Amino acid sequence: MSKRIEHDFLGEKEIPHDVYYGIQTLRALENFHITGIPLMVEPIFVQSLGYVKKAAAMANRDLGVLDKDIAAYIIKACDRVIAGEFNNQFLSDLIQGGAGTSVNMNANEVIANVALEMMGKEKGQYDFCHPNNHVNCSQSTNDAYPTAFRIALINKLTGYSNTLGDLANAFGEKGIEFRNVLKMGRTQLQDAVPMSLGDEFKAFATNLNEELSRIEDSKRLISEINMGATAIGTSVNAPKGYADLVTQYLREVTGLELVLAGDLIEATYDTGAYVQLSGVLKRTAVKVSKICNDLRLLSSGPRTGLNEINLPPMQPGSSIMPGKVNPVIPEVVNQTAFYVIGADLTVTMAAEAGQLQLNVMEPVISFALFTAITYMTNACRTLREKCVLGITANAERTRDMVMNSIGIVTQLNPVIGYEKCSAIAREALETGKSVHDIVVKEQQLITQEKWDEIFTFDNLIRPQFIQ
Amino acid sequence: MSKRIEHDFLGEKEIPHDVYYGIQTLRALENFHITGIPLMVEPIFVQSLGYVKKAAAMANRDLGVLDKDIAAYIIKACDRVIAGEFNNQFLSDLIQGGAGTSVNMNANEVIANVALEMMGKEKGQYDFCHPNNHVNCSQSTNDAYPTAFRIALINKLTGYSNTLGDLANAFGEKGIEFRNVLKMGRTQLQDAVPMSLGDEFKAFATNLNEELSRIEDSKRLISEINMGATAIGTSVNAPKGYADLVTQYLREVTGLELVLAGDLIEATYDTGAYVQLSGVLKRTAVKVSKICNDLRLLSSGPRTGLNEINLPPMQPGSSIMPGKVNPVIPEVVNQTAFYVIGADLTVTMAAEAGQLQLNVMEPVISFALFTAITYMTNACRTLREKCVLGITANAERTRDMVMNSIGIVTQLNPVIGYEKCSAIAREALETGKSVHDIVVKEQQLITQEKWDEIFTFDNLIRPQFIQ
Amino acid sequence: MSKRIEHDFLGEKEIPHDVYYGIQTLRALENFHITGIPLMVEPIFVQSLGYVKKAAAMANRDLGVLDKDIAAYIIKACDRVIAGEFNNQFLSDLIQGGAGTSVNMNANEVIANVALEMMGKEKGQYDFCHPNNHVNCSQSTNDAYPTAFRIALINKLTGYSNTLGDLANAFGEKGIEFRNVLKMGRTQLQDAVPMSLGDEFKAFATNLNEELSRIEDSKRLISEINMGATAIGTSVNAPKGYADLVTQYLREVTGLELVLAGDLIEATYDTGAYVQLSGVLKRTAVKVSKICNDLRLLSSGPRTGLNEINLPPMQPGSSIMPGKVNPVIPEVVNQTAFYVIGADLTVTMAAEAGQLQLNVMEPVISFALFTAITYMTNACRTLREKCVLGITANAERTRDMVMNSIGIVTQLNPVIGYEKCSAIAREALETGKSVHDIVVKEQQLITQEKWDEIFTFDNLIRPQFIQ
Amino acid sequence: MSKRIEHDFLGEKEIPHDVYYGIQTLRALENFHITGIPLMVEPIFVQSLGYVKKAAAMANRDLGVLDKDIAAYIIKACDRVIAGEFNNQFLSDLIQGGAGTSVNMNANEVIANVALEMMGKEKGQYDFCHPNNHVNCSQSTNDAYPTAFRIALINKLTGYSNTLGDLANAFGEKGIEFRNVLKMGRTQLQDAVPMSLGDEFKAFATNLNEELSRIEDSKRLISEINMGATAIGTSVNAPKGYADLVTQYLREVTGLELVLAGDLIEATYDTGAYVQLSGVLKRTAVKVSKICNDLRLLSSGPRTGLNEINLPPMQPGSSIMPGKVNPVIPEVVNQTAFYVIGADLTVTMAAEAGQLQLNVMEPVISFALFTAITYMTNACRTLREKCVLGITANAERTRDMVMNSIGIVTQLNPVIGYEKCSAIAREALETGKSVHDIVVKEQQLITQEKWDEIFTFDNLIRPQFIQ
Repeated sequence: MSKRIEHDFLGEKEIPHDVYYGIQTLRALENFHITGIPLMVEPIFVQSLGYVKKAAAMANRDLGVLDKDIAAYIIKACDRVIAGEFNNQFLSDLIQGGAGTSVNMNANEVIANVALEMMGKEKGQYDFCHPNNHVNCSQSTNDAYPTAFRIALINKLTGYSNTLGDLANAFGEKGIEFRNVLKMGRTQLQDAVPMSLGDEFKAFATNLNEELSRIEDSKRLISEINMGATAIGTSVNAPKGYADLVTQYLREVTGLELVLAGDLIEATYDTGAYVQLSGVLKRTAVKVSKICNDLRLLSSGPRTGLNEINLPPMQPGSSIMPGKVNPVIPEVVNQTAFYVIGADLTVTMAAEAGQLQLNVMEPVISFALFTAITYMTNACRTLREKCVLGITANAERTRDMVMNSIGIVTQLNPVIGYEKCSAIAREALETGKSVHDIVVKEQQLITQEKWDEIFTFDNLIRPQFIQ
Repeated sequence: MSKRIEHDFLGEKEIPHDVYYGIQTLRALENFHITGIPLMVEPIFVQSLGYVKKAAAMANRDLGVLDKDIAAYIIKACDRVIAGEFNNQFLSDLIQGGAGTSVNMNANEVIANVALEMMGKEKGQYDFCHPNNHVNCSQSTNDAYPTAFRIALINKLTGYSNTLGDLANAFGEKGIEFRNVLKMGRTQLQDAVPMSLGDEFKAFATNLNEELSRIEDSKRLISEINMGATAIGTSVNAPKGYADLVTQYLREVTGLELVLAGDLIEATYDTGAYVQLSGVLKRTAVKVSKICNDLRLLSSGPRTGLNEINLPPMQPGSSIMPGKVNPVIPEVVNQTAFYVIGADLTVTMAAEAGQLQLNVMEPVISFALFTAITYMTNACRTLREKCVLGITANAERTRDMVMNSIGIVTQLNPVIGYEKCSAIAREALETGKSVHDIVVKEQQLITQEKWDEIFTFDNLIRPQFIQ
Repeated sequence: MSKRIEHDFLGEKEIPHDVYYGIQTLRALENFHITGIPLMVEPIFVQSLGYVKKAAAMANRDLGVLDKDIAAYIIKACDRVIAGEFNNQFLSDLIQGGAGTSVNMNANEVIANVALEMMGKEKGQYDFCHPNNHVNCSQSTNDAYPTAFRIALINKLTGYSNTLGDLANAFGEKGIEFRNVLKMGRTQLQDAVPMSLGDEFKAFATNLNEELSRIEDSKRLISEINMGATAIGTSVNAPKGYADLVTQYLREVTGLELVLAGDLIEATYDTGAYVQLSGVLKRTAVKVSKICNDLRLLSSGPRTGLNEINLPPMQPGSSIMPGKVNPVIPEVVNQTAFYVIGADLTVTMAAEAGQLQLNVMEPVISFALFTAITYMTNACRTLREKCVLGITANAERTRDMVMNSIGIVTQLNPVIGYEKCSAIAREALETGKSVHDIVVKEQQLITQEKWDEIFTFDNLIRPQFIQ
Repeated sequence: MSKRIEHDFLGEKEIPHDVYYGIQTLRALENFHITGIPLMVEPIFVQSLGYVKKAAAMANRDLGVLDKDIAAYIIKACDRVIAGEFNNQFLSDLIQGGAGTSVNMNANEVIANVALEMMGKEKGQYDFCHPNNHVNCSQSTNDAYPTAFRIALINKLTGYSNTLGDLANAFGEKGIEFRNVLKMGRTQLQDAVPMSLGDEFKAFATNLNEELSRIEDSKRLISEINMGATAIGTSVNAPKGYADLVTQYLREVTGLELVLAGDLIEATYDTGAYVQLSGVLKRTAVKVSKICNDLRLLSSGPRTGLNEINLPPMQPGSSIMPGKVNPVIPEVVNQTAFYVIGADLTVTMAAEAGQLQLNVMEPVISFALFTAITYMTNACRTLREKCVLGITANAERTRDMVMNSIGIVTQLNPVIGYEKCSAIAREALETGKSVHDIVVKEQQLITQEKWDEIFTFDNLIRPQFIQ
C-alpha cells in the first residue's frame, strides 16, 4: 500500500495514501487508546465539524484572509463532510487529551485533503490547502471544537426531546384509557385514599412533559458559542468582524439560533452549559427511573404482589422458573437511568477540573453527554414501544381492593372527625372488619343513605367535598 | 414540673406543661435521633409553616369549613410563629421519617396551643382548637409541608443570590482595577498567549453572574405549590375552591409569586424542582471551585510558583514553616463546594426513591438543600470579604514573564505562518533564546519596525489583527 | 472583661483573658464561618489531639529536644484535655482552610495555656511554654492533624461497629423466630419460589455481618500514621529516632495498634485510607438502604400491599388520613443512607483535589466522615431499637399466598420438565386456576400422592431435590 | 437464507439457520437497544460462561441428573466456547433487563446448538440437548450469571493489576533516577521545604503499589460464588451435594480460588462485592488523577510555569499556537479517572436498587465495572508507556529555585526559633532579599560556617536534625 510522508514540528510520519487524515490525526490514534469508541459513532458531531469549518471559510473569504479559490474548495469539501461522506475518517478516541485538538485537526486534515483532491492535487500537498493556515484560519481548537460540540448537542437533543415527548404522550393516552379505573392510592407504600388509575398515568405524562421545557432551557444555554475567541478568548489572529460574521454564517448553514458569547474569555473555559444540560438529563433520568419503579410495583405479582396492571410480556423471565415473566423493559430503563446519573458525575468532575483559560477535560464531557443522550433516547423509545403502549389494567381487582380497604375512612373526616375516624381505622385493622360494617352497622355513626351518598364511584375516584 | 396528658390513636403520653408542642411532636423527638440538628436552625422554615397555616385558616374561614372565631385565633397564633416567637418549639430532627408529618404536626400542635392560650384555655384542650381538625383543616402533610419548604427555599435563595451577586461584583471591580496588567494566558497549564489580568477577573464576574439567572429559573420552578392537593392530590376533604383561594392568600401573606400546580397528583410526589435547584447549586459550586483553584494557582509561590497575584494574608500558614501564608480562604471555599456537590447526590438519590403517590424522602432533601444554600452563602460571603476585595497584582512580574515567553510567537502567525512559527518556538525552547532574537536578529524574518508594530503593549494585552 | 494581647507574624490581637486558646485560634474563628459546627461536637477528636501532643512531648523529652519540666507540664495539660476538661475551647469550624493548621494550633494554644496556668504563669506568657516551639515541637500540622484525625476515626468506628453488629444480631434473632414462616420469595418483584421468612431475615444478618470485617479492614488502613514526617515528609526539624519513638508512645497512650508509614512523603499527602473508609461506609449504607426498602415493601398494606410483616407503629402517619401508620423508622434510615452516599462523593472530590506534597482538603473529609459515622451509628441503633426488635409476621397470610401461587410449579421441573411447567403456569395465570387443579385433576400429570410428597411444608420452605 | 422455527411459552419465532443462539436470545436482541455494545466485546465474559456451564455439566453428570452422553457433548461444546470459537454469537446488549437471563439463555442456547451439531443433529432439535433442561440443569440465571461475571472480573483484574504494577514500577525507577535532584516541596501550592524529586516520584510508586493489595482484597470478595443457589438461594431443583461439587469443578476448570458462599439466600441478591470493587477502582482513579494533576503542574510552563520536569512531547498542542506542546497523556488519564468515578456512582445506585431476593440491576453493574477496568487498564498502560518512561528533570532550575526560596528558613527553626524565623521570612518576602543575606550578613544570627553546616546539599535534600 502506498504511503505519503507528512511532518509536523515534532517530526515526520508515513501515512497510508488512501486515508484523508494526516499526521496529527495519526499521532492521536497512536496516543489515545482508552475506550476504543471512535468519533465516527457520533456522525452528528462529524457533521457539526463540517458546519464550523464551512462557516469559517465563508467568513475568512469575505474578510479577505482566505484566498477565494481555496475557500471555495474548502466549502465544497465541508459539504461532503456534512453529507457524511467521510465519517469513516474520524477515528480518534472520544476520550482524549489535548482539549479536542486531535478532533479539530482530524477535521482540518480531512477537509484539506478532500479539497486538495478536488483541486487535482495529491493528498498532503498542503501548500495549496493547509490544515492549519487555511482550513483552521482564524480559529483555534478552543473555539472550533466546543462550537461543533454544541451544534451536535443541540441536534441530538432535538431527537431526544421528540422521543421523550412521544413517551409522555403514550402515558397521557393510557391516562385517558384508564380514566375510570378505581384504585387505591398509596403513600409511603401504605394504603392511602382512592384515586383513578388514569390520573396516575396522566401524572406520569405531566411529570415527563415538564422535562421538554427543561431541555429547551438547555438548548438555549448550549446555543451560546465562542467562534472568534481563538486561543484564549482575546481573538488573537482573528480579523476584525470575524466573530460576528462567522456566527451569522453558522446560523445560516445550521439553521440553529446560535448566539455569540458576550465575554469570549469566559466562554472559552466555561463548561457551565454542559453541567446544566447534564443536570437536566439526570433529572429526567431520576423521573423516568421513579416511573419505572412504579410500573414494576404496580405490575408485581401475579399472585403475591399488587397486580394492578399488566405489562406486555416480552420474554421468558427465568431459565428455571417456568412461566415467569419479568418487567424487563422498565428494568433496562432503570439501569439506563443509573448510567446517566453516573455520567452526570463524570461531567461534574470534569467541569470542576478546568484551569485558568481552558477546560481541557471537554472530551470526556462530550463522551458522557453523547452516551447519556443516546442511551436515554433509546431507553425512552424502548419504554414506549415495548411497554407503555401495551399496558392493561386489572380493573376488577383494583376496585375490590379499594372497597376492602381501610383508607376510604378518610372520606368520613369532615363528617365524623379525624379522631373518631382513627379509632375506626384501628378497629378495622385489628379485627379485619370492613369500615362500612363498623361505621354503619355497629356504631351507626352515619346512615346507609349517607354512606351511599359519600361512597359513590364518582366520589371515590374523584372526591367532592361532602360534610 | 407540671405535665399534661395527651393522646393519639396509638396511646397517651405526658407532656411538660410549658411546651407548646404536643404528643405527635414528642413521638418524633423520641423516634428520630440522627443528626441532632433541630428544625429551629432554619427559622425561615418555621416562619414558612406559619404562613401556610395562616393562609389555610383564612381560606377555610371564607369557605365556611372553619369557625370564624377559631380561625381568628389561629391566624393570630400564626402571626406570632411567623414573627419567630416560638422557634424554640420546633425541635424535630431535620432528617426524619414520615415525609414531614412530624414537622407539619409540630406546627399544628404549637399553633393550636398558642391559640388555646390566647383563648384563655389550657394547652391541650383541643376541643376548642384542634391540631388536626382546625389548624390542619383542608390540609395534609403532603401539601402543607412541601409548600412551606418551598417558601423557605425561595426566601433563602434570595439571600444567597444577593451574596453571590456581591461576589461577582467584587470580581468585576478587580477586573477594572487590573485592566492594564499584562500577563500570560495559559491553557492546559502551558503558556498560551498574553492577556489582561483584568479580563481574567472580569471573566470570573461573568461566570458567576450567569448563575443569578439560573437561580431565578429555580425560584420559578420552586414557586409551584400544591395546596389543596391533600393526601395524594385528589383533594379529598378539601372544599371546592379551596386550592385557588389558599394559594391566593399565600401569595398575599408571603409576597411571593406562588402558583398552583396544574396536576395536583403529579405535584404531590414530584421532586423535580428540588433536583433542578440542587443542580444549580452544584453548578455554581463547580464554578466557584474552579475560580478558587485559579486563585490558588495564580497566587502560588511566593518564589517557586506563578506568583501573579497576592491574596490577603489571613493567618499564619504553618505550625512549623515560619512565615508561610496559605490561601486558606479559597481552600475553605473549595471544600464547601465539595460538600454541595455531595449534597446534590443525596438529593438525587432521595428524588429517585419516590414511590407511587409520594416521595417520602423529602426531609433529607430539605436537609441537603438547606445546608447547601447556607454553606454556599457563607462561602461566597467569606470569599468576597476575606479574599477577593484584598487581592493585589504583581504587575511587573507578570509583564516580565510575558516578554520572556515563547507564547508571543502566536501573534506572528498571520505574518510568517504557523509552520515557521512552530520551528521558531521549538528553537526558543531548546536553546533558551528569546523569540525576538531568533525572529529579528538571527533569521531576520521581520524588521525591528514590524516587530515594534506588532508587539505594542496594547496589541499584546488586547490583540488587533495585523497581517 | 479583661483581655490579653497576643501576636503572630501578621500582627497582634486582643484575646479575652479567660479563654485558653490564642491568637491563631481567634483568627480561625474570624476566618471560617461555613457550617457553624465547631470542633467540640467531636470530643473524640479533641481527645485525640491530646493524645498526639502528649506522645510528642514524651518523645521530645526523651530525645532531649524539650526541657523535662516543660514536657511534664505539657503532659499534664494533655491529660486534662484528654479527659475532656477543655472541650469548649475547641471552637473552629469543622470545614476550614489551611489543611487543619487552625485545629492543630487550637490544640497547641490551649495546651500551652493550660500548662502555663499549672506552672503559675499567666496565659500568653509563651516564653515559658510556647504553642509552636514546645507543644508543637518536632511536629507539623501535616503530621499531628491527620494522626489525631485517624485516632478519632478508629475510636468512632469501634462504637459504630458495635452498633452495626447489634443490628445484625437483631435480624439474626428474628431469623430464628420466623424460621417456620412459609412465604413466597420474589425476584424482580415477581412471584418466584417459596422460602422461609426466617431465612430472609437471617440473610439480612449475614449481609450486615460482612460489613464488620470491612470496617476492620478500614481500621487497619487508618492505623497507619505519619508522626515525624513534619512539613512534607522529609522529617525536617525532627530529631533522629523521633518518628519511631513518638509512634511507640502513641500506641501506649491510646492503646491502639498504630503503625508508622513506610514512606513518609507519600503518607503526608495520601488520603487513600479515607477514601477506602468512606467506601466502606457507603457500602454499608447501600446495604442498609436495600434492607429498609425490603422492610417497607414487606410491610406494605395493610389491605392493598404485601402485608407479610408488621413493623411496630411509632407515630400516627398522617395529619389527614385517620389510623394510617407509616414505616417511619426504615424511612429515616433510607434517608441517612442517602446522606452517607453523598458524603462519600464529598470525600472523593476532596481526595482527588490533593496537590503535590499535601492534601489541603482534609478538613472537609473529616467533616464528611465524622457526620457519616455519627449518622449511620444513630440510624443503625434506631433501626434496631425502634423497628427490628418489634417486627411480627403475618404467617397465615404468607402461607396462603404461597399455596395460592403459581410459583410453586418450579418444584415440578425435575418431574415434568421446564416446558410443560411453563404451559401450566401460563394456563394458571390466564384462567385463575390453581397449579394443583391443573396438574393433578385436569391433566393428571402426577398423582395426588406424588403431589403430597413434593409439596410438604418442609419441602416448600426448604426444598429437597425430588425427581 | 434458511430459517428454523423455535418456540418458547410466549410463542414462536424464525431463527436464521446459521446462528447458534435461539429464540430467547433473539427476543433479547429485539428488546434491548440501549448501548449498542454487545456482550462479545468482553470475550472474557463469554469464556466464563463456558466455564460455568462446563462445571455444571460435570457435576450434574456425576450426580446422575444429566445423561452422561449429553453431558459429554455439552462439555465439548463448552470447551469450544471457552476457546472463543463462538464469541460472535454473544450479541445481547450489555445493559439489559431481566437480571442477566438473556445472557444466561444466550449461553444455554449456543452451547445446546453447538452440542447438537456435534451430535449430528440439527440446530433447534432440543429434545436431544435442551438449553434449559440440559445445559442449564441445576442452575438458574441467578447463580450462573453472577458466577460467570465474577470469574470474568477476577481474570480482568489480574491484567489490570499487572498493568498498574508496571506503572508503579516506572515511577519507582524514575524515583531512583531523580534521587539527587534537589527541588522545593510545596504544600497548598505555597513553597514549603526542599526535597528530592526522586522521593516525589518514589511516593507516586508507593501510592500506587498500595492499590495492588486493595485489588487482591477485591478479588477475594469477588471469589465468593453462589452456584447451587438456583432461583432464590433455597437450592430448589438442585440435587444434594451439587453446590459443593460444581464449585469444586469450577475451581478446577478456571484455576481460581473460588469459594461457595455460606448463606446462599443472601449471596443471591448481595452486590456488596461489586460495590467494594468499584470503590477500589475509584480509589485508584482518585490517586492516578492526583498524580496526573501533579505531573501537569510540575511540567507547566515552559517559561511561565513551574517547569521542573519535561513530559515527552506526543503531538502538537494547538491548531493555532505554534510550537505549543501539551501534557495530553496525563490529561486523558484524568478524564478516564472521571469516567471511573462516575461509573462507581452507577454501581452504587444499581446496588441500592436491589429488592427482596434479587438485584435485577446486575447487568448495568457489569457494564460499569467492565468498562471501568478496561479504561483504567488502558489509561495506566498509556501513562507508563507514553509519559512516565520518558520524563526528564530540569535539575538546574529546580536547584536554583530552592536556593532562591524563603522556605529554607524552616531548617533554622531548631537554631533560632519559630518566631524569629517567621520575621526573617516576612522580611525576605517584602524586600526580595535572600534568607542567607538577612540571617548571616545583616542580622548575623548565625555564622557563615554554621550556615554552611546546615545548608549542605545532603541536608537540604534529606535533612538531618541540627540544633
